[in-house]
Amino acid sequence: MTFNSFNPPQRILMGPGPSDVSARVLSALARPTVGHLDPLFINMMDEVKTLLQFAFQTKNEFTIALSAPGSAGMEACFVNLVEAGDKVIVCRNGVFGDRMIQNVNRIGAEAVVVDSPWARAVETHKVKAALHDHPDAKFLAFVHAETSTGAVSDAKALCKMAQEHDCLTIVDAVTSLGGVELKVDEWGIDAIYSGTQKCMSCVPGISPLSFSPKAVAVVQNRKTQIQSWFLDQTLVMGYWSGEGKRSYHHTAPVNSLYALHEALVMLHDEGLENSWARHKEQHEVLAKGLKELGIEFIVPEEERLPQLNAIYIPEGADDAKIREYLLEHYNLEIGAGLGAFAGKAWRIGLMGHAAKSENVALCLTALKDALSQ
Amino acid sequence: MTFNSFNPPQRILMGPGPSDVSARVLSALARPTVGHLDPLFINMMDEVKTLLQFAFQTKNEFTIALSAPGSAGMEACFVNLVEAGDKVIVCRNGVFGDRMIQNVNRIGAEAVVVDSPWARAVETHKVKAALHDHPDAKFLAFVHAETSTGAVSDAKALCKMAQEHDCLTIVDAVTSLGGVELKVDEWGIDAIYSGTQKCMSCVPGISPLSFSPKAVAVVQNRKTQIQSWFLDQTLVMGYWSGEGKRSYHHTAPVNSLYALHEALVMLHDEGLENSWARHKEQHEVLAKGLKELGIEFIVPEEERLPQLNAIYIPEGADDAKIREYLLEHYNLEIGAGLGAFAGKAWRIGLMGHAAKSENVALCLTALKDALSQ
Repeated sequence: MTFNSFNPPQRILMGPGPSDVSARVLSALARPTVGHLDPLFINMMDEVKTLLQFAFQTKNEFTIALSAPGSAGMEACFVNLVEAGDKVIVCRNGVFGDRMIQNVNRIGAEAVVVDSPWARAVETHKVKAALHDHPDAKFLAFVHAETSTGAVSDAKALCKMAQEHDCLTIVDAVTSLGGVELKVDEWGIDAIYSGTQKCMSCVPGISPLSFSPKAVAVVQNRKTQIQSWFLDQTLVMGYWSGEGKRSYHHTAPVNSLYALHEALVMLHDEGLENSWARHKEQHEVLAKGLKELGIEFIVPEEERLPQLNAIYIPEGADDAKIREYLLEHYNLEIGAGLGAFAGKAWRIGLMGHAAKSENVALCLTALKDALSQ
Repeated sequence: MTFNSFNPPQRILMGPGPSDVSARVLSALARPTVGHLDPLFINMMDEVKTLLQFAFQTKNEFTIALSAPGSAGMEACFVNLVEAGDKVIVCRNGVFGDRMIQNVNRIGAEAVVVDSPWARAVETHKVKAALHDHPDAKFLAFVHAETSTGAVSDAKALCKMAQEHDCLTIVDAVTSLGGVELKVDEWGIDAIYSGTQKCMSCVPGISPLSFSPKAVAVVQNRKTQIQSWFLDQTLVMGYWSGEGKRSYHHTAPVNSLYALHEALVMLHDEGLENSWARHKEQHEVLAKGLKELGIEFIVPEEERLPQLNAIYIPEGADDAKIREYLLEHYNLEIGAGLGAFAGKAWRIGLMGHAAKSENVALCLTALKDALSQ
């Protein structure tokens, strides 16, 4: 048996992630590997921390890049903060809210589920009622930007409610970070995680993570041991302490962190508000073009994420065949529907580097062509 | 505040990992990102699986690349196989055996600890006695190649003993895979994990993992739910099923997997036996040179790993200053001692791509220079 090097084609990634990675980030990724305890690498990690604080809009001392994908970031929040027997109000309006519930259950904690319809924002009045009905709830968990449907929830309002009931908040920002307004400190988010492969336009595999001082205190005052060794952030806090000394926990994914550093430098250069505005502008052009094609969004206008456009598959169109056609003829990837929307919706991502005029133009033209086949 | 791109120097990595990554692997890493469900990527993943089966010398259907570092690979083995109340015999002769115990404890299982001296192989007679004394033990766990000390244990003999007592084996092969003889099927290893940043000479962040059919049956017949969602391999088995259909679990670290594929193709081209022989040859040259410098190994000759040479810091030499000198004057990284050997030993890695004459020559010359300062 012989094996050859893998040479992927240059795709245009307009699915729900991974998003297009720029040549600049790919080039950073391929720089020579240094040791994870090399003083130069440690300096770079300090910058990654500062840049993540900027991206999250937080002063949280505990702001790190977890060495695993966003789903591990989710689990890191739950296993560090939540103990068996704790009550957690979890909002579910898509796949990722459901995954939060599974995380709570596996800890032996109690999930109070607040269901909102898929493809809609979390219904704040239901959350308010749940907080009122469960004064013993310690945490409120919700997804800011549901990647499965493209709906954005009112994170600011949800955090305010939680604070009024002395609940800490655990927030999924996998698809929101860099793409829409997100202000960790101003909104009072206590634990937040994201992914690198969405609006950061970085390679997949890393999860930015930030805990408020209040959340850190909860972790440090637990009664029981954290059930995961790998995700135990008390062991990692020393590693990311920024005091110039890194204790060994695990080998950091050196090259992926080069890439994240570069992606964050680019975001910093552009400016957060500019990035949010760019995503919105490109979304509006795309939405207009989709309307002209007679295609409907699954999410009402005011609850739509600009960076993730979930649309109904037009009647008579073959889901898989159309996506295959786009990939084969245009090297264009759009995403299938997930969960309740599998086979019913497509998800068009305009994330990070992919949120640009040439991509929107191509997508509209290619989709029109594919639908007319 | 302004931030610039990070441009690391070209180091020569002769520590305990990450090891030197070849230009060929770095170049694969930087190829354009495709979607994790792209048919071409799925084909590549099938090859990664086949190549990992080759590297592990196994036919195990469940052979995957976990999307996180080796310490997550360790945890994946324990949380999937071991349930609360189970008895696990754990061999400890260094840092990583100790970490295994922490994994067992966090599951609520019982660890029967067999201690052997650091910098020595696991003492098989002690393991034999423990297996005899604990007929209810379900698992025997040990580290094949202790990265903290450079000692190799007799994995073949330990597995044979475990089989005689109907114990499944959980084996740490983080530093052994590709560097010394390792035969998963022939030796009868049931669960094994490794890392990419050692003798694979790939970037850090991925953990090759393989379960025997017997181990898979244990996972599938558990009485209790696996405590980790991210590491629950029953959810990932579908993703890696090789039936051409991948169900979504998490976004695979696409680019890191390009790099692993390339590193495995290179290992396959070289041949496993040739790779083992190369590590041994380079080790012998290094050992001879170290002897000439009057430097002693911490591990007896017959228990030494060729790819990780742990040596006593010569009397009067300043640990940190010498390592700093090597890094500053020669861009050469060697490793500090870990755990009981912190401040007492250095660890010189000859791993994968780094196991070559030019590195050995440089290391000996540079060390001689540094020690004479």
